[in-house]
This record gives sequence, C-alpha cells and structure tokens, in this order.
Amino acid sequence: MSAAPTLYESLADHLASLVEAGSLLAGDRLPSVRGLAAQQGVSISTVLQAYVLLESRGLVEVRPQSGHYVKARLHPRLPEPRTPRVEPGARAVTVAERVGQLYTGLDGSAGVLGLALPDATLLPARRLARSMVRAARASGEASVAYGPPAGMPALRRELARRSASWGCAIPADEILITVGAMEALHLALRAVARRGETIAVESPAFFGVLQLIESLGIKVVEIPARAGTGMDLSVLDGVLRRRRIQAVMAVPSFNNPLGSRMPDGARKELARIVTRHDVPLIEDDVYGDLQFDGARPRLVRSFDRKGLVLLCSSFSKTLAPGYRVGWIAPGRYRTTIERMKFAQTVSSPVLPQLAIADFLQSGGYDHHLRSLRRSLREQVARYGAEIAARFPPGTRLSRPQGGFVLWVELPPGTDALALQERAVAEGAAVAPGPIFSANGGFRNCLRISCGQPWSPAIEQALAKVGRIATELAGRDAGATRALQS
Amino acid sequence: MSAAPTLYESLADHLASLVEAGSLLAGDRLPSVRGLAAQQGVSISTVLQAYVLLESRGLVEVRPQSGHYVKARLHPRLPEPRTPRVEPGARAVTVAERVGQLYTGLDGSAGVLGLALPDATLLPARRLARSMVRAARASGEASVAYGPPAGMPALRRELARRSASWGCAIPADEILITVGAMEALHLALRAVARRGETIAVESPAFFGVLQLIESLGIKVVEIPARAGTGMDLSVLDGVLRRRRIQAVMAVPSFNNPLGSRMPDGARKELARIVTRHDVPLIEDDVYGDLQFDGARPRLVRSFDRKGLVLLCSSFSKTLAPGYRVGWIAPGRYRTTIERMKFAQTVSSPVLPQLAIADFLQSGGYDHHLRSLRRSLREQVARYGAEIAARFPPGTRLSRPQGGFVLWVELPPGTDALALQERAVAEGAAVAPGPIFSANGGFRNCLRISCGQPWSPAIEQALAKVGRIATELAGRDAGATRALQS
Repeated sequence: MSAAPTLYESLADHLASLVEAGSLLAGDRLPSVRGLAAQQGVSISTVLQAYVLLESRGLVEVRPQSGHYVKARLHPRLPEPRTPRVEPGARAVTVAERVGQLYTGLDGSAGVLGLALPDATLLPARRLARSMVRAARASGEASVAYGPPAGMPALRRELARRSASWGCAIPADEILITVGAMEALHLALRAVARRGETIAVESPAFFGVLQLIESLGIKVVEIPARAGTGMDLSVLDGVLRRRRIQAVMAVPSFNNPLGSRMPDGARKELARIVTRHDVPLIEDDVYGDLQFDGARPRLVRSFDRKGLVLLCSSFSKTLAPGYRVGWIAPGRYRTTIERMKFAQTVSSPVLPQLAIADFLQSGGYDHHLRSLRRSLREQVARYGAEIAARFPPGTRLSRPQGGFVLWVELPPGTDALALQERAVAEGAAVAPGPIFSANGGFRNCLRISCGQPWSPAIEQALAKVGRIATELAGRDAGATRALQS
Repeated sequence: MSAAPTLYESLADHLASLVEAGSLLAGDRLPSVRGLAAQQGVSISTVLQAYVLLESRGLVEVRPQSGHYVKARLHPRLPEPRTPRVEPGARAVTVAERVGQLYTGLDGSAGVLGLALPDATLLPARRLARSMVRAARASGEASVAYGPPAGMPALRRELARRSASWGCAIPADEILITVGAMEALHLALRAVARRGETIAVESPAFFGVLQLIESLGIKVVEIPARAGTGMDLSVLDGVLRRRRIQAVMAVPSFNNPLGSRMPDGARKELARIVTRHDVPLIEDDVYGDLQFDGARPRLVRSFDRKGLVLLCSSFSKTLAPGYRVGWIAPGRYRTTIERMKFAQTVSSPVLPQLAIADFLQSGGYDHHLRSLRRSLREQVARYGAEIAARFPPGTRLSRPQGGFVLWVELPPGTDALALQERAVAEGAAVAPGPIFSANGGFRNCLRISCGQPWSPAIEQALAKVGRIATELAGRDAGATRALQS
C-alpha cells in the first residue's frame, strides 16, 4: 500500500494533467530538471524522480544528450464501444455453462488479465491483520458465539457513519451485514422475485450476478448500457410501461465491465422511474468508492423516498475480498431480508466484522482509498495505452471513470471465443464478452482487468492477446472479403 | 474449557455409573471416605472431591454425622415422548410466522433455556483466538485475497483426515467449505429440489431448517421420528414407493430436538432405501461429534456406494458458532454445488478457515471434544432430573444420547403456546413445539436447551416453566372434566 502522494508524485500528476489537457503535446520537450526544480521550489532529485515516474507510466521518453520529451501517442485515443442492441422481451439466463467453459478453472492463466480484483499488494493486508489480532484478543468468548443475524453493531455503526458521504444517511438499524456483496444481492433477489418472474438488468452485466439470477430461475429483460453513462433509462421506462417487471438491478457507479458512471441527473430520473412504477431497485454499489476524479458518486438511494432501493455493497473491491464482508440496506424489505439472512447463513462470521470495524475506527480508510484510486487510475491508463498500441485497427475501448476493468470491442466479426481459446493456450486468458450477456451476445468483446500493477508479465500478456486479436480480425476480415467476392 | 478427566472426576463417573446401572440404589450409603480411599488406592481428598462433585450433580446427598447417600429419586424416570402421528401427504411449510411470533427477538429471556447452542464457556475461545492470531500473521496478503470457492486446502485436508473416524474416508477434493452448516444445507436443498417440489423430512425437525425449506418454496412430507432411534424408515419407504420425492433430509445423530441416535443397522437400511429409489439423502451431521457414550456414530454416508449422500456439517456446535465454518461433501452433486457456492457467496472468509485448520493441526480438538461431551452429558442429566422433579404428572421426556437439547411432551391438552406466552412474561422463554413442525403440530411439546452449565438462574427458570406447565395442565384437565360433566 502506498502512502499519501509524495512531492514527486504530485509533481508527476501535475505534469501528466498538462499532457492530458493538451497543454503539453506529443514531442514537446519538458523543462530542464534544474529549471523546473528552481521554478517549483523543489530539489533536483524530486524532479528527477517525477520524470522517472512519468517515463514508467509511458508518458515521457528520454532522448540522450537532449532531455525529456512527451512521448508521441502511437495510436489516437480509441473510440468508445457501441451501445449494444438488445433483443426485447424476457428470457431465461443461460450463462453458467459459458462461464464454466470459458472462464472458471483458469486461475493460473486468467490471473493477470482475467480476474477482476484489486491486486493484494494494493490492499492494506498488514494493517488489517493487526486489526484482526486486536479483535481476536479483545473479543474473548464473543468471538466464538453467534453474532446477531443483522451483524455486529460496531460495524453497522461505522457504515451508518460513512453513509453520509454517499448522499444519504442510512440508520445503523437498517443495515445488515452479509457474506460479501454476493450474499447481499442473493438476499435482495430472493426478496423481490421468484422463479419464473422477470427483472430488468443492464447489458453487459457482471457474469457472477447473471449466474446468481440463473441459479434462482429468474428471467431477465436486458436494458442496453452505454459505455459512458450506464443503463439507457428511456428503454427501461418503456419496458416498465409495457410489462410486469419484479425489480430493476443496476450498478450505477463504475459497473463491471463498462466502468461507466451514471450522471447525477440520471440517478434522480432512475429513482423517479422506479417510484412511478412502484418497482424495487437493487442498487449494487460495490465499486462506488473507486472514482478516479472528483467526488464520490451519490447513490440512487439518496433520491428514494419510498424505501424502494435495496442497496448492496461490500469491502471486497476496496479492502479485503478474503474477509467476505458485505452489507445490505434493504429499505422496506428490511424484515423479509433479516428473516432470510437468518435462514440462509444464521449470521456472518464475527471476527472479520470486528476486524474491519476496528480498521475503520482507527482511521486511515479514506487515506487508503485515495492511494488505491490513484493506483487504479494509473493502471487503467497504462493498460489502455498498451491496448491502443497493440490491438487491431477498429478496436473500441471503454473509458472507465472508476474501478479497474476495461471493456474492449474488437472489430466486427472478431470472435472472442476463438480468441479466448488461443489466449488460454498461451497462458493469457481474458474474460470473453459472451459471459457478460444473458444469452451469449458480445461475441466480439472482452473484458481486461487492470487490477495488477503494471509489469513485464502484464505487458507480455497484453501483447499476446493483441497479436491473437489482430490475427483473428485479419482472418475474419479476409473471410468476409472472400464471402463477398 | 476443562482438561482431561482428573482422578476425582473419573472416580465420580464410576460411582455415577453404578447408580445408573442400579448397583447402587436410592438411599444406599456410599462407602466411607477413608474406606474408599484405601480400597481405590487414592488420597482422601480425591474421594472427598468426587463426593462433592456427585452432590453437585444431584446424585448424592450428605446426612450430617452419618455419611453420603444415594439421593432418593423424587420422581421415577419419565417415559419417552410418543412418536407423532403425522398427516400423510405433501404440504407447504408455514413455520416462519410462528418462529417470528414465538421465538425470535427473545434473545434475553430465551438465552437460558431457549437457544440451542453450547455456552461459550464450554468452547476453547482463547486457544482459538491464538490460532486466529497465528493465521492472521502468517497468511500475509493471502488473508485479504479471495480464497478458492471450494475452501482453503489446509482445512479441507484436516477434514478429510478426520473423516476416517466417521466410518468413511472422504477425499479432500470432494469437500467444500461453507458459511456454517446452514449454507451447506441451503446449497444441498437447491441442488436437489426446486420450488413446488417435495422432500421428506423428520418430524419433529429443527425449525431453522424448516424456515430454510419454506423460504425456498419446497414442500415436505413429514416422516415421524421416534424419540430414541429417529426417522421411521418403514413410513419413509412407503412414501418413496407411493410418490415422487426429490430428496430425503435426515439428522441421524442426536437430532435437534429429539437427541435420538439412529442405530447402525437402520443407517445401513436408510442408505439401502435411498439407493433403491435413487433419491438423494441430505445427511445433516452437525451434532455427530457429541455422543455421550461409546464410539462416534457411523455416517449413513459410509454405507452409500452411489454418491447419493450430500453430507453437511459444521464446527458451530463443537468449536465456534461465531466462526461460521461449515462444510459439505456432496457426492455426485459436487460440480453443481461448487458452481452454486461461487454464485452464492463466491468463497468463504479466509481467516476463520485458516484459524480452525491451525487449531486442528496443533492437536487438542479430540481432547476438547471429550471434555465438551462430558460437560454436556452432565448438564443434560441435571436438567432432566430437575424437569422430572418440577413438571406436571404425565410429562414425557426424551433421553438424548448426545447433543444438548431435551424434548418435553406435556400432558395431553397442555398448550405450549400459552405456556410460552406466560414464560416469556416471566423471563424464561423456551422453544415451543409447534415451531418444530411444518404445520403447527406438537402443541403440547417444548424443547429445552441444556447448553449452559447448571446454575441458580437455570434452576429458577426451570422452576418457573415447571410451575406454569403444572398450572396449565391442571386447568386443561379441569376444562376437559367440565366439558365431560
């Protein structure tokens, strides 16, 4: 875990922002080390460190005997993926088989680009272990006894305290602790829909949630999601007018795989739509703390006056996936959900809750989040630059505003399943597009996780995937030409 | 946690067994302290301590200037509860409402007699905390990262090693770690039955499992369970011959609430029946390590040759409910269950698994179990003696062969719901019979938990419940007489 930005990191960020804003252009010479040191009132070694950092980020190159220059972009910024056209109508989800074939069991080779999780080196493992040791020692017999089904009061209080910064103050009493966000979503789904009933989901959507929906026998109507702003609300509103939908499920902040951020106005509109149709909204906020710039997004829940929003989240993307601590603030479904939680897992493990409560109480979570966001933003930029350089012409790429995944749309006709097969054989698995669809769409898309810090292994893996994609795109283009001739 | 039996405890156990076997009768004078010390080759203080222990167990009384005497039984040993007559046919479970009204939210007053869990003072909280500290320190970044969906290999290996003593060697690969036995049962149920389908369950059965079944919309056929030997297999076989049943669910060892032990022959027969009908068996073994006498029961699973048994268990009744560590060995359902586990909670929390693996590796679990069994056997005997003394004539009482709950059948017509209402008002809640039935049967029954060491508070609580039961039994008898006159 890195600490607050040092002087040289701040200086590098400042210079990078000038490049991003176009004030410094490709080929421009950066100020001399001495000159900049004098101008900024910092030491020469601070400037040198900043330049080395910019070099490692791929933004700056050194020309011997000449100085530091803004690196020429090898490729122009790629266009964003297109918003999918989705078949209207409710349908069963059939994703589990594809996930099983294409993705799971690939731990080794999928680790680098395939698994969407922040690398453990970005997480405060040591400090959290200290919190765990304190909790284990302080709690005595309470650590072996059942905790309350709703969760440990100390953690629920900390969450209630933090909720003010989400745009709404959620009372500690409403919050229930779960085994990760997945249990929260599972409880929420079971509370609002039964086997054979239908909910509305984004398309593309995280395959883990699609698998959960499939395992519950719930049908979906897929609502197209735009790469930049998420779920298309006019389509959603039309669907809700036309047919009976039990619930809407959305990830308004930095959803996996798009990384989109629904604007505040759209969040308000979404709350208005579900209120008008009196349909519950399952708001999955698991990436909500991971914005790259500006303030944390407000929750849709902050616009809800009817208790219709079941808010689900966890510490799995920000602090400790292995602790499996999530939560749900289920609005008007509070009683139902608590009963289900009791029947499902009785209560959550005591010590992981107490350890995280201790970590939050002892301060430093916001500090950690700042550092994590900076690392992820940098990684996403670095991976993105590499994809722009390595992938075939016609590739489109998401511009996530938070989180740590990239969504790649390959040239039309390029088969992500064929790509995955070859990439796995070469030890560089990704997450192919069809697992993000209820029915196998997104054949020419894939998700690349940027959770690991940049390294030669990442560079090689991306180079392999880029080469395979280029070969497949060429072959497909050739096949298309052959068919047309 | 007490250690291995001391000399005086062994001596007390020996004398108690003579009383139990009828070699020493009520009113018999025990040997003089000096005489017994000389005969057994132990010190006088050892004999004195043994006599004090027997006195505290209510087996022996001191007559001043005379000596120690076997205490007269105030009441004869109570007869066992009758095997219920159960309506044939499949039906929906409607227990959640009753559980909500009669039982949950009673933490304070239900704690003493109502909650079926071993008191935390009987569990090795301190040693387990040391294991947790070691695990937190040793695991580094692995503690924050996701563990494998199937669970941590170290713990699965320890369980596989232990399984030899259950009568069957289960490979570590087959075992999946869950969030307590409840998640294991939940996964097992979802793997074998869907909403609207029917399974066979024991009657009475643990209300937590009935709630889970209800929440999944699964119907049940209730199979009567005998107080001593559990599920009536001839009824089960008849039901399986007559109708489509998706699965059988059974707790062959010391089930809650009866404490019965299915004989080995019946276990073999149960395995034969499910094999003949090709129906999966969910074997819940959560109390299997808590026998009072003799060897640990063999698993029904040990007679299964077809992979039909989904074995579910946990450490919640023996080591640490608050750790929420359970497991499932799902036989032929292995692949389905792993997929569901991933979709349901991704994986279980890492550190509680590693802490328990460390505890098992470092030895002392079997030692702890011996001590725990001795405490529970003593508590169940002490509570039972008090119930025999305090409850109205006509009361019947289970004779559990393991675990820590007693099942009380009050005289016909005595209303357990009225009893519960009055008992709660007096701060002595129990678990009323109707919550152990899919449809509100067992109106004159209740479960008493003996998880807490004997104390004046327990004595008072049992006295209250006994008095209320006696009043209600009298009133009901009066009402019956009035109706007849």
